[in-house]
Amino acid sequence: MNADQRHITIWWEDLAAGSSRDLGTISPTAEEIIAFASQFDPQPFHLSEEGGKASLFGGLCASGWHTCSMAMRLMVTNFLGQSSSLGSPGMENLKWLKPVYPGDVLQLTQHIVESRPMASRPDVGLIRSQWQMVNQHGQPVMQMEGYGMFRRRTPAAAQ
Amino acid sequence: MNADQRHITIWWEDLAAGSSRDLGTISPTAEEIIAFASQFDPQPFHLSEEGGKASLFGGLCASGWHTCSMAMRLMVTNFLGQSSSLGSPGMENLKWLKPVYPGDVLQLTQHIVESRPMASRPDVGLIRSQWQMVNQHGQPVMQMEGYGMFRRRTPAAAQ
Repeated sequence: MNADQRHITIWWEDLAAGSSRDLGTISPTAEEIIAFASQFDPQPFHLSEEGGKASLFGGLCASGWHTCSMAMRLMVTNFLGQSSSLGSPGMENLKWLKPVYPGDVLQLTQHIVESRPMASRPDVGLIRSQWQMVNQHGQPVMQMEGYGMFRRRTPAAAQ
Repeated sequence: MNADQRHITIWWEDLAAGSSRDLGTISPTAEEIIAFASQFDPQPFHLSEEGGKASLFGGLCASGWHTCSMAMRLMVTNFLGQSSSLGSPGMENLKWLKPVYPGDVLQLTQHIVESRPMASRPDVGLIRSQWQMVNQHGQPVMQMEGYGMFRRRTPAAAQ
């Protein structure tokens, strides 16, 4: 929300429909998976290798919310932190497609599927993005979609 | 996924469409908000009171993913951990409606909107739930919807 305080290099005009960005990789350790789950999702398959082996997942795996949070870290570090983002009202069609295991290398891609000016605010534009996270085997593990609001480099009224 | 290892008191048959459950409350401290954001969502308004004051949020507030994770904790502790849950493929219509500030008392309610047998598995049923989190002022701060799979107390074939 305080875009003014950041060094902005990405504005709404830079986020064209049809474009994609590679937002880098993140890899959770067993200790991180267990720490997150102990605080937020204490189900047996998120808490120990034994609990995971006794489940359909076949081994310790990350909470789906941990996976979302790791995706958010990549978004902030490699995209939102350099952008004129004004935040997001939420997400749609969040899908956990495969388990995430310790040591998996998760790569995030943003696909911009729609971009339009915001009728009520000449200085703001909207984009609709799909976020997809893939593991080191090329398998999608998580995807979601959502709108984001971004300040425009040049307000509509000034054009 | 390892429903067999838990003491199950809630089965698919207990999850009637139209019913609601109060899943208790959780309250984040400023330290917890900052710790989560430092790891997963390092935007200024999630990292310090000063960063929050400089934003449209007006003060330090929790990452939306932190709010989801706190809701999950209430789900597991007060519902899923005693249930025959087989997991969820994802969520829909996730909305962050109001900022969550330090000391807010967040209460979670599950509304079951749909319940049906799973055609392909006589021992499993599906429910569709809406999850709503409200703060101490009665304001909704987060909501989402999703399907969950639960084992049946009595498989369809045995009835």
